[in-house]
Amino acid sequence: MQALEQKILTEGIVLSDNVLKVDAFLNHQIDPVLMQQIGKEFAARFKDQGITKIITIEASGIAPAVMAGLELGVPVIFARKYQSLTLKDDLYRSKVYSFTKQTESTIAISNKHIHSSDHVLIIDDFLANGQAALGLADLIHQANANIVGIGIVIEKSFQTGRDLLIEKGYRVESLARIQSLNDGKVTFIQA
Amino acid sequence: MQALEQKILTEGIVLSDNVLKVDAFLNHQIDPVLMQQIGKEFAARFKDQGITKIITIEASGIAPAVMAGLELGVPVIFARKYQSLTLKDDLYRSKVYSFTKQTESTIAISNKHIHSSDHVLIIDDFLANGQAALGLADLIHQANANIVGIGIVIEKSFQTGRDLLIEKGYRVESLARIQSLNDGKVTFIQA
Repeated sequence: MQALEQKILTEGIVLSDNVLKVDAFLNHQIDPVLMQQIGKEFAARFKDQGITKIITIEASGIAPAVMAGLELGVPVIFARKYQSLTLKDDLYRSKVYSFTKQTESTIAISNKHIHSSDHVLIIDDFLANGQAALGLADLIHQANANIVGIGIVIEKSFQTGRDLLIEKGYRVESLARIQSLNDGKVTFIQA
Repeated sequence: MQALEQKILTEGIVLSDNVLKVDAFLNHQIDPVLMQQIGKEFAARFKDQGITKIITIEASGIAPAVMAGLELGVPVIFARKYQSLTLKDDLYRSKVYSFTKQTESTIAISNKHIHSSDHVLIIDDFLANGQAALGLADLIHQANANIVGIGIVIEKSFQTGRDLLIEKGYRVESLARIQSLNDGKVTFIQA
């Protein structure tokens, strides 16, 4: 996706061969116009799939997921990383290990908002090792719902996540695919 | 705001005289169409104020804030409650006490994305005791930026937050103002 790649090149900061910081438009400051374009692109790629629900994870997944939800006309659920006082229902839970933070956290969604008849699109901001996406997929499997595919804003294609998800049979659509961050430079995989 | 009040009446759950659960459309599952209407309403109320930036707090503030940002054509920053590995810049920090959770947390924004020339609209999902809004205002004051006003999706008008913010001179615009949750029933303040 041209506009996204351009934004990464102009406003992304390569912190190391593994870490791209996009706090200027996605992970801390958010560019709503770009998010709308991203939402439209996800909707175009997954239209006619009978999607009934989008599931993402707080906090950086919310903006692109809500814009995709607006385009597709479906509700969005964000999985919480912590259990809040007012989220006391029966929950589907899954453990997610973060290689970045080297911590394991529990993610959860309420069983009230997802059903076995749902066709779910997973959306997340980054795909690296695939652990967050697998955790979300696990929640959806617990509900016996169908996973239509996984939409990713930025994929670090040099890490293992994409292959892992495709091996498990999921359709993965990433709007920017990064081949390398070596030498402080972002190189994209050309479609 | 009529559509919001209607949604609260049909899908909100009164858990006690103090707690309204809106996990069906705002705090866990999100209704993107309603969020767009909310964004338009905030934009209408704060147009012509020269707003350059919206600041909110993760996670439930993000959806309404991004929709307002889209309408007003300005970036959105969400304050983080925890310091992530890739958010290592110099930060403005503030402490926020949650009466609901009875815990104190630190919220922070990067000093890269807010400047003394900014005119900032604060947006949050709920106003109860006003502590989150005051914390966000504190971050903005640290940047010597101007606070144009505070936009709230749901105000619990029977708690002290609104008066506290107005005493401090802030303009507060709440799209739904709840007079009471007594006896399991939501009563709104009529405009």
